[in-house]
Amino acid sequence: MSLDKAPKVLYFNITSPAEYVVHIEINRPAKLNSFFTPMWYELKSLFEFFSHDPCTRVILLSGAGDRAFTSGLDVAQASSPDSTLRSTSITDPARKATSLRRHILELQDTISAVARCEKPTIALIHGYAYGLGIDLSSACDIRMCDSKTQLCVKEVDIGLAADVGTLSRIGKVTGGVTSWVKEVCLTARPFTAEEALQNRFVSRVTQGGKSNLISEGLKLAELLASKSPVAVSGTKNILDASWGRTIEDNLNYTAVWNAGMLQSEDVDTAMMSGLKKQKPKFSKL
Amino acid sequence: MSLDKAPKVLYFNITSPAEYVVHIEINRPAKLNSFFTPMWYELKSLFEFFSHDPCTRVILLSGAGDRAFTSGLDVAQASSPDSTLRSTSITDPARKATSLRRHILELQDTISAVARCEKPTIALIHGYAYGLGIDLSSACDIRMCDSKTQLCVKEVDIGLAADVGTLSRIGKVTGGVTSWVKEVCLTARPFTAEEALQNRFVSRVTQGGKSNLISEGLKLAELLASKSPVAVSGTKNILDASWGRTIEDNLNYTAVWNAGMLQSEDVDTAMMSGLKKQKPKFSKL
Amino acid sequence: MSLDKAPKVLYFNITSPAEYVVHIEINRPAKLNSFFTPMWYELKSLFEFFSHDPCTRVILLSGAGDRAFTSGLDVAQASSPDSTLRSTSITDPARKATSLRRHILELQDTISAVARCEKPTIALIHGYAYGLGIDLSSACDIRMCDSKTQLCVKEVDIGLAADVGTLSRIGKVTGGVTSWVKEVCLTARPFTAEEALQNRFVSRVTQGGKSNLISEGLKLAELLASKSPVAVSGTKNILDASWGRTIEDNLNYTAVWNAGMLQSEDVDTAMMSGLKKQKPKFSKL
Amino acid sequence: MSLDKAPKVLYFNITSPAEYVVHIEINRPAKLNSFFTPMWYELKSLFEFFSHDPCTRVILLSGAGDRAFTSGLDVAQASSPDSTLRSTSITDPARKATSLRRHILELQDTISAVARCEKPTIALIHGYAYGLGIDLSSACDIRMCDSKTQLCVKEVDIGLAADVGTLSRIGKVTGGVTSWVKEVCLTARPFTAEEALQNRFVSRVTQGGKSNLISEGLKLAELLASKSPVAVSGTKNILDASWGRTIEDNLNYTAVWNAGMLQSEDVDTAMMSGLKKQKPKFSKL
Amino acid sequence: MSLDKAPKVLYFNITSPAEYVVHIEINRPAKLNSFFTPMWYELKSLFEFFSHDPCTRVILLSGAGDRAFTSGLDVAQASSPDSTLRSTSITDPARKATSLRRHILELQDTISAVARCEKPTIALIHGYAYGLGIDLSSACDIRMCDSKTQLCVKEVDIGLAADVGTLSRIGKVTGGVTSWVKEVCLTARPFTAEEALQNRFVSRVTQGGKSNLISEGLKLAELLASKSPVAVSGTKNILDASWGRTIEDNLNYTAVWNAGMLQSEDVDTAMMSGLKKQKPKFSKL
Amino acid sequence: MSLDKAPKVLYFNITSPAEYVVHIEINRPAKLNSFFTPMWYELKSLFEFFSHDPCTRVILLSGAGDRAFTSGLDVAQASSPDSTLRSTSITDPARKATSLRRHILELQDTISAVARCEKPTIALIHGYAYGLGIDLSSACDIRMCDSKTQLCVKEVDIGLAADVGTLSRIGKVTGGVTSWVKEVCLTARPFTAEEALQNRFVSRVTQGGKSNLISEGLKLAELLASKSPVAVSGTKNILDASWGRTIEDNLNYTAVWNAGMLQSEDVDTAMMSGLKKQKPKFSKL
Repeated sequence: MSLDKAPKVLYFNITSPAEYVVHIEINRPAKLNSFFTPMWYELKSLFEFFSHDPCTRVILLSGAGDRAFTSGLDVAQASSPDSTLRSTSITDPARKATSLRRHILELQDTISAVARCEKPTIALIHGYAYGLGIDLSSACDIRMCDSKTQLCVKEVDIGLAADVGTLSRIGKVTGGVTSWVKEVCLTARPFTAEEALQNRFVSRVTQGGKSNLISEGLKLAELLASKSPVAVSGTKNILDASWGRTIEDNLNYTAVWNAGMLQSEDVDTAMMSGLKKQKPKFSKL
Repeated sequence: MSLDKAPKVLYFNITSPAEYVVHIEINRPAKLNSFFTPMWYELKSLFEFFSHDPCTRVILLSGAGDRAFTSGLDVAQASSPDSTLRSTSITDPARKATSLRRHILELQDTISAVARCEKPTIALIHGYAYGLGIDLSSACDIRMCDSKTQLCVKEVDIGLAADVGTLSRIGKVTGGVTSWVKEVCLTARPFTAEEALQNRFVSRVTQGGKSNLISEGLKLAELLASKSPVAVSGTKNILDASWGRTIEDNLNYTAVWNAGMLQSEDVDTAMMSGLKKQKPKFSKL
Repeated sequence: MSLDKAPKVLYFNITSPAEYVVHIEINRPAKLNSFFTPMWYELKSLFEFFSHDPCTRVILLSGAGDRAFTSGLDVAQASSPDSTLRSTSITDPARKATSLRRHILELQDTISAVARCEKPTIALIHGYAYGLGIDLSSACDIRMCDSKTQLCVKEVDIGLAADVGTLSRIGKVTGGVTSWVKEVCLTARPFTAEEALQNRFVSRVTQGGKSNLISEGLKLAELLASKSPVAVSGTKNILDASWGRTIEDNLNYTAVWNAGMLQSEDVDTAMMSGLKKQKPKFSKL
Repeated sequence: MSLDKAPKVLYFNITSPAEYVVHIEINRPAKLNSFFTPMWYELKSLFEFFSHDPCTRVILLSGAGDRAFTSGLDVAQASSPDSTLRSTSITDPARKATSLRRHILELQDTISAVARCEKPTIALIHGYAYGLGIDLSSACDIRMCDSKTQLCVKEVDIGLAADVGTLSRIGKVTGGVTSWVKEVCLTARPFTAEEALQNRFVSRVTQGGKSNLISEGLKLAELLASKSPVAVSGTKNILDASWGRTIEDNLNYTAVWNAGMLQSEDVDTAMMSGLKKQKPKFSKL
Repeated sequence: MSLDKAPKVLYFNITSPAEYVVHIEINRPAKLNSFFTPMWYELKSLFEFFSHDPCTRVILLSGAGDRAFTSGLDVAQASSPDSTLRSTSITDPARKATSLRRHILELQDTISAVARCEKPTIALIHGYAYGLGIDLSSACDIRMCDSKTQLCVKEVDIGLAADVGTLSRIGKVTGGVTSWVKEVCLTARPFTAEEALQNRFVSRVTQGGKSNLISEGLKLAELLASKSPVAVSGTKNILDASWGRTIEDNLNYTAVWNAGMLQSEDVDTAMMSGLKKQKPKFSKL
Repeated sequence: MSLDKAPKVLYFNITSPAEYVVHIEINRPAKLNSFFTPMWYELKSLFEFFSHDPCTRVILLSGAGDRAFTSGLDVAQASSPDSTLRSTSITDPARKATSLRRHILELQDTISAVARCEKPTIALIHGYAYGLGIDLSSACDIRMCDSKTQLCVKEVDIGLAADVGTLSRIGKVTGGVTSWVKEVCLTARPFTAEEALQNRFVSRVTQGGKSNLISEGLKLAELLASKSPVAVSGTKNILDASWGRTIEDNLNYTAVWNAGMLQSEDVDTAMMSGLKKQKPKFSKL
């Protein structure tokens, strides 16, 4: 594995629990893995690195410790007088708005780096997943959680509309701007793992606490890592491109994509392995 | 409350069951709350008023009497010879089409006034919710129903494609143009509360008849009314703006929205109350 | 019925089990109804014919034999050296890409002919529904399956991203690019009827094997065939047009559509039958 | 003509200089036809009335007096302490933003009422056409101006981005967000009739002052009024619908539109008149 | 050349005036090259053939004889009692609308076959180019005309909104829904070559009549035919895909397109020829 | 000025010829200012810096020396065996496609950094502006050129479709995918300053060589720098956001934008200066 080439970070643990599988663990457990400024930069650099890393085929994302995936923004820091949000150094509302807009776009871009990652990402959600925890896991491809997980689109409770991704992606990842979506986003009430499953925010709920969740997530990751990386990353790209566009548009996009990609040796490798009932072996991507 | 400034209407009851909560009741129970011409104007004027009314933070919508939320268009009136639909005074098909188009756009605009309402709206559905009942509740943010409710996208049974909102909004509010959506829209068969829940048309089904439904709806309304109105109406606006657009487009829109809104005193109020474990108090919006 | 005017085909059985109902059966059971070149042309010509055929109001689609709806592409044929996919006659990657793109667009157009069919289509899915089976049924309006059905977005297993429709339509027909959608598309793992129902790929699961499925499908088809064909095909068209577009756009489109369609005699027929409690009888479309 | 049924207004002169032609003149010449609050309401009510008025086929819009089409917003009024823009009664920036947004949306809706008018509109631009004069004429279909006209996208000079239509429509009406568009919008420098013609903001420049402009405008209006109103309003609607959408989308929309409209008696009338070299006579719309 | 494999047609002359250049001439000069039913089918089959024909790199389109590119629909035929437009066999307006819609979509698809042609197309416009002449040339890539050409968006004069492409494409090919576009489309007044050039409907006006136009068109075609067909058809595809979409969307599409296409031997061939100052020679596409 | 905080670069000269005005000069004149790898990074870092730099209100972009704005990609470098384009280290076409796609997206992002710059940008084009010179200047807001400039969308001549921005932006900056746009993009023929003006690629052509061009550009820059930076950057943002979107969408976006921005002190400053006929002075942004 290429972990030694990965960016050096302080607030995330990086391991490779299986071939082609990278596990990123948010590592600030004493603060419920809440985010403060340096973590945003680290997060972005990690996902940009692994997106193109040839030895990476799947990324698992979880939180260190048993208590939280992440409790969200570190509100103590965000509410300190020198934060962008509460700074009083700028008095003109338009200039303050400009400063805030730049800041929000920068934070959004970090979460979007997770969404743009070429390789599939699996969020393993446990304990508290509040605020940013929803933004972050919504940017992943697959979400699984432990049966005791508590989730919450918390932003309304701090006086604002969620602005780094949840409101833009929840319609895509749960399917629609449903009554339930409106309910949990407008009220900021916590919801359970069961509710997350019924409303399709997650596709699986595991029993037995975090260790079992990690173990189930790893199995899924290993399955994904055994497939053609050309096929997997193409499927991810095309599915994501379908959202908010017409079907005709996406069909044409797919044809252009596969015009190049069907020439891959992976098609031969996969087909021949299938006919010979062998396990295929694919080159790095 | 500002109910005395609200438009004077004949076919709706307006009350304020709790601070910042308005309850609009469709009030033509003898006709199963079916709609005829004057009600459209009243409905639009009400939602336009409460949308901007500073004393209103949530709107509950239900039907008077136990039998129906609304049975839909008053077909007797709609099928009378002098209705736009059946008028024979225009003979040229293009001029008749123009007359019909103007009429449909006007009716759509009434339902869209519900959807455009800045404050969150909760449809409390009971008894019959046929035809227009689906158009109307689809334009609300949250839908709850009593376990005995009977719902129906009825329009195919009167020889037409639903044209004042159901077909445009059902993909958004249930999530997708699914097999079930096609089934109930193409066949006009009634569906149950349970089916509505499973297919996410509603987010909750209450037991115990209309009174319990109203009571549960009111609890939810009170919860919403206790939150920052700046945060709540921003969340609603951004979620609605996300539908049919790309994620990138909505992220940018969100950043522009919050550039102005994060300057709100509500952020301070909410954060400080959270840290102090106090109940926040927000100004009118 | 007009079956004698329908295109003559070799690999599909065409019957009319009830008035206005056409049943198309994929008929290559010895090969699990897998598709090879001539079948694509036949499929397209059939759906283009029945789309405009005045005697057709609903189309049922199923597979011959008990074993499969369709197992997908005939991989043996697709992997033969003279297939477009594996041809080595073109060496320049750009020219090969052009050849592949033309081929994909042509196959997509066949599946889109199913989606464009003016009359509602019901996929009755049983046995294996792999790869192309998902593309094909996703292009239908309603999907039902037998409780023993095994479904699979198989393409990743042959080294490619599904390119004739599944990835473009699954977000629409299941509602969203959910965690489950990503999971089944990225892993190519089979999923059950139950899972298909929970994730809304199908709207009903029948017990008792294929014969019961066909029988339930026929009942639904008869119900659809009894409705105004003007209302039914308009509803289908408008629902499909809503996907990937804004609500405002679709509302206006609906008004333009109904400006012409509300002038139909079907409105009178349906309304009068409703008031007189009679079964309406509609002209051909 | 139906002028007696038109809304009663104070700041606009309404005349009918020819059959089916309405001339609306902005009438506050002592203030260079600048707009203040009551004029917005009048403007909207007028265009909503004439849009559906059966006796109206074309609308001419010009300014009273020789000096200005309109010099824009009445800045004296807009800068008075009790205007929405400068009100200090609201102190919370989010609540002030909400108040401003509501106000802008309301003003935009007035200009959009001009754009939505079903009948073609011709702006006859003379003297000064500053700020709102560009918003307003951009919402018309055809723009002509006198050779001495001075035009200006003035808003940057009062410290704001134009927000009631110019920036949204100028790309459509001049074709593109060109270097010239950016130049005149970013600098707020005045531009001449000649420049307006070269950059296609207007399609004609007349010589000889306002009277000649009006006379040329009237000739064009009479030509338009002699055509099938079904054909003319359909052409306007479809051209406007094409902007910002794909060609495929607009082609389908056109087919749906004409499905109803080609049934018009106007097609017969027009064709027969053409073959017989007679002047056709069309019913009201 | 592969002309002997081209579809056999009666109303078009097909020649190859230079290597890789095909010249299609509308050949019904006695009727001013007006279109009647069989010509639509021929036109579509020709463009579908040459789109994929490896020996074709550019297509010239002109009209036979000196009098017209095409005068448009053969109105005599279109107004005969058994035409779809005037048929009285269907009386229900909705069924008539359905019949008309199917017919329009079919005609649109023919014109779109010209637009979809992978190889660049040059319309050489001379004499009359009325109605369909504008639809048809708008679907081409490049338009040149003789200085005496008379053009006209004629449809309003036969009582209808142009529905086979002009209104959907004119905004793209002239740049915007300008005052001039509205003027010529709403009034159906003829316009000159000079006006067509100023408003960018054509990019060149030639002097000296049709023969010189053909000769200039041929020079341009030969230039195009000498370029890499991979580069040329990619450029066409991407430019067309940019219309009605966001820049971000098109940039990503371009990257996906070129991911396959930059692997072409044409890049080497072109670069090396450039460095060696030689004329490159490209394989067929 | 803040030039000392700007990124240190080797291939660009950075000066501040007037208050708030930055002049970036592409500085590799011995190679006709052609681009090679390090310059891409420098370009991006510069525009990202000045976009947010409070002391910058306008950016001028030109080329060093008299011979070229930029002759485009350094083809010698691009065609060297170790360039991404010609690398043979990857043999699988899908993996090569992935590598190329990543590379193209990265280059596009550099050009898009110019387009995203919050402050207005003016390209001063002189000498040769080939290939990348068009991509780059298309990403600027305003384009002016010297009368002797030679421009060329050169990519077809090196065997590829332009992929870092020209084909996506030219429809926006010249208005439409016109016959002329197709002609110059498909043929790669050079075009003159005069042609660029007529087809609106530039808004002004200056006489007298580069020095006069720079001098005229500087005057325009000084004019822009004297305006409210809040108004100017808002106008730029909203105009850019209008492209490829519907007018309704952009109107709403504008209202949201100005809800925050109209609260600016700049509105007061500008209005008061206007009334007092004084030159306004605005704070930094």
